[in-house]
Amino acid sequence: MIDFPGINEICTTTKSKILMLVVDGLGGSVDQAKGGSELDLANIPNLDSLASTSACGLTTPVLPGITPGSGPGHLSLFGYDPIKYLMGRGVLEALGIEANMKNGDVAARGNFCTTDGEGNLLDRRAGRIKSEETIPLCEELNNITVPGAQIEVIPVQDYRFVVMFRGIGMDERVTETDPQVLSVPPRPVEALVEESRNTATAVNEFISEAKRILSKRDKANMILLRGFSQLPTLPDFGLTYRLNPAAIAAYPMYRGLAKIVGMKVIPTGQTFDQEITTLEQNFQDHDFIYLHYKPADAAGEDGDFDAKVAALEELDKFIPRLLEINPDVLVVAGDHATPSVLAAHGWQPVPFMIKSQFTSGEGVKEFTERSCSAGSLGQIHATQAMLLALAHAGKLTKFGP
Amino acid sequence: MIDFPGINEICTTTKSKILMLVVDGLGGSVDQAKGGSELDLANIPNLDSLASTSACGLTTPVLPGITPGSGPGHLSLFGYDPIKYLMGRGVLEALGIEANMKNGDVAARGNFCTTDGEGNLLDRRAGRIKSEETIPLCEELNNITVPGAQIEVIPVQDYRFVVMFRGIGMDERVTETDPQVLSVPPRPVEALVEESRNTATAVNEFISEAKRILSKRDKANMILLRGFSQLPTLPDFGLTYRLNPAAIAAYPMYRGLAKIVGMKVIPTGQTFDQEITTLEQNFQDHDFIYLHYKPADAAGEDGDFDAKVAALEELDKFIPRLLEINPDVLVVAGDHATPSVLAAHGWQPVPFMIKSQFTSGEGVKEFTERSCSAGSLGQIHATQAMLLALAHAGKLTKFGP
Repeated sequence: MIDFPGINEICTTTKSKILMLVVDGLGGSVDQAKGGSELDLANIPNLDSLASTSACGLTTPVLPGITPGSGPGHLSLFGYDPIKYLMGRGVLEALGIEANMKNGDVAARGNFCTTDGEGNLLDRRAGRIKSEETIPLCEELNNITVPGAQIEVIPVQDYRFVVMFRGIGMDERVTETDPQVLSVPPRPVEALVEESRNTATAVNEFISEAKRILSKRDKANMILLRGFSQLPTLPDFGLTYRLNPAAIAAYPMYRGLAKIVGMKVIPTGQTFDQEITTLEQNFQDHDFIYLHYKPADAAGEDGDFDAKVAALEELDKFIPRLLEINPDVLVVAGDHATPSVLAAHGWQPVPFMIKSQFTSGEGVKEFTERSCSAGSLGQIHATQAMLLALAHAGKLTKFGP
Repeated sequence: MIDFPGINEICTTTKSKILMLVVDGLGGSVDQAKGGSELDLANIPNLDSLASTSACGLTTPVLPGITPGSGPGHLSLFGYDPIKYLMGRGVLEALGIEANMKNGDVAARGNFCTTDGEGNLLDRRAGRIKSEETIPLCEELNNITVPGAQIEVIPVQDYRFVVMFRGIGMDERVTETDPQVLSVPPRPVEALVEESRNTATAVNEFISEAKRILSKRDKANMILLRGFSQLPTLPDFGLTYRLNPAAIAAYPMYRGLAKIVGMKVIPTGQTFDQEITTLEQNFQDHDFIYLHYKPADAAGEDGDFDAKVAALEELDKFIPRLLEINPDVLVVAGDHATPSVLAAHGWQPVPFMIKSQFTSGEGVKEFTERSCSAGSLGQIHATQAMLLALAHAGKLTKFGP
């Protein structure tokens, strides 16, 4: 883990190459009607075969019982204590649209909302107003100027946008404006500490200007802001582990997560097939590549067991191409479970395997939750995945005399 | 664990109900002559059947190799770091007799002892003098008054009593009087810090008055005091987890432990049968109930393998009644092992299982130390049991965006 004291001193740069495939929402849970978990029922001969020659185990992203968001789930796999390095909602939203967020910027998640003549909330999402209508509104808000802060307003989707406040001494420690209930006015932003006074003032001036601009409209005549947050100060991934790391991910949020730990983000296409082509073309230039596979999580979030099985089977077909690239260490991990029975992220430990010259199988014949729990790695904290990857790559020297 | 930052923010109150059965001294160890552990040899079809549809694992109460007392064992299962929230011997003794101990009170464990004409110790336990003789002596000591502190002396059993010092600014940081060897006089109490000076003075005045009262006796003519301690400041269990918790325990010490974490203690009878009747009558009023089963520990402490097997078999007969109550989450845990071969508490990890709508078995067919080690939960720290119970009950929301 990146907080292991002296991790940097025991890391050594070598020619060996690590490929870390992160299957988003990899883990699942038994669906009683189906008679097993998604991995149990998926036909994944290539992953099963890989498991039979790998070291296998289960990872816990945060703590047993704790369901992580995508931010904590990924940071943990990269070796960052997800409790220590918390990431706010505004930051994650900004990462998700690849906003050009810089250290010190305060990002907030914004909603257009509708208020009545007295300023009381009628609809916190402005009737889920569509992007066609909100993109021009965001452009108008983007022109607002206030003293002490530069403002950038970027549409996300439908009624949602991101607003970033940039300037000397910006501070995330301010309250949210969304009262979470109707028939009351949005709250003003308040400084929670002395140091965030200027931020609160700038945000409130921005809001009152936005209110003035939107006031003639029937709906979407006001905004709500929440999740004020700054980029956490993360140790640099490449410097810490003495790696030259790169990330390949079709979805913006995962590119954003890689970027804030300091990985080089390689442009790629929209599909996993295109991601692998990007990998094939760039593998020689890096000694660590993080490769992201999204569809398993999306299907799990939809509560669609069969779609998740299909997404895992689809992934399985690409495994031979990954093996052809012949990384010295191949890690297959998940950032968290997304059991279809929950239709959401879950707390369950996540299957994990690592293949290198040092592995030759340990009786695990399938890549499932249950079989991995009998693997040689046992249950490890996800922050230890990088240590294992580095060790299998011969990149960790002895600790202590 | 309860020190997980923001645990309160991710807890949510729901209608689901958690029943946590704590089997005192549940875990055991192999007796070579018997050919297995107590759980291996007990005929416990209901617990075995429950294990076959549960998520199973082993809990470590403190650290591998560390044998916990009842206090740390229970606090850990309730989610409190047992190293951080230490409980002194005096407090535990006071809880064990349900003394009306309040925040700030300093409790000490007392022994009657016998000294010679020069005040040197002849017998640290006064010949294990019996309660008939010591109860009137405790009444005499209870009448002692000293400046700055109210004193309460309560008999425990035979030569043992509890003394509580109550007053403004009482402080537990004082030395013990028991020199642990004979032929020397009891030590005076000394303040370890400036803040405990008044406590030391009050205790020494109490001791010299006690010496005067007892001085004409041949034996039990002096007292020894140790384990000076105050109630630890524990986060409230119900407020932290957003639960409405209750405890059902036949033994006073366990009621005391539940009380100091803020659980409602429901009056019950002397037997487990009566405890379950109390449970049946009160289950609808709470979303978390801690239910304590004592006999397994008592038999293990006696070093009586067969009696411990019998105590486990007796427990097994009650499992169907617990299942009839139909809790959404049923946890079966132990506060620590009490292997008969040790005739004492042990350091061994303790079998653990959790049954909910999310569990359907994982190949574990018996509720034993060995089979639970192959369960999906692996080896977890006991402080994580509550997180798992809450997760299975749908009472934990996502951590981090």
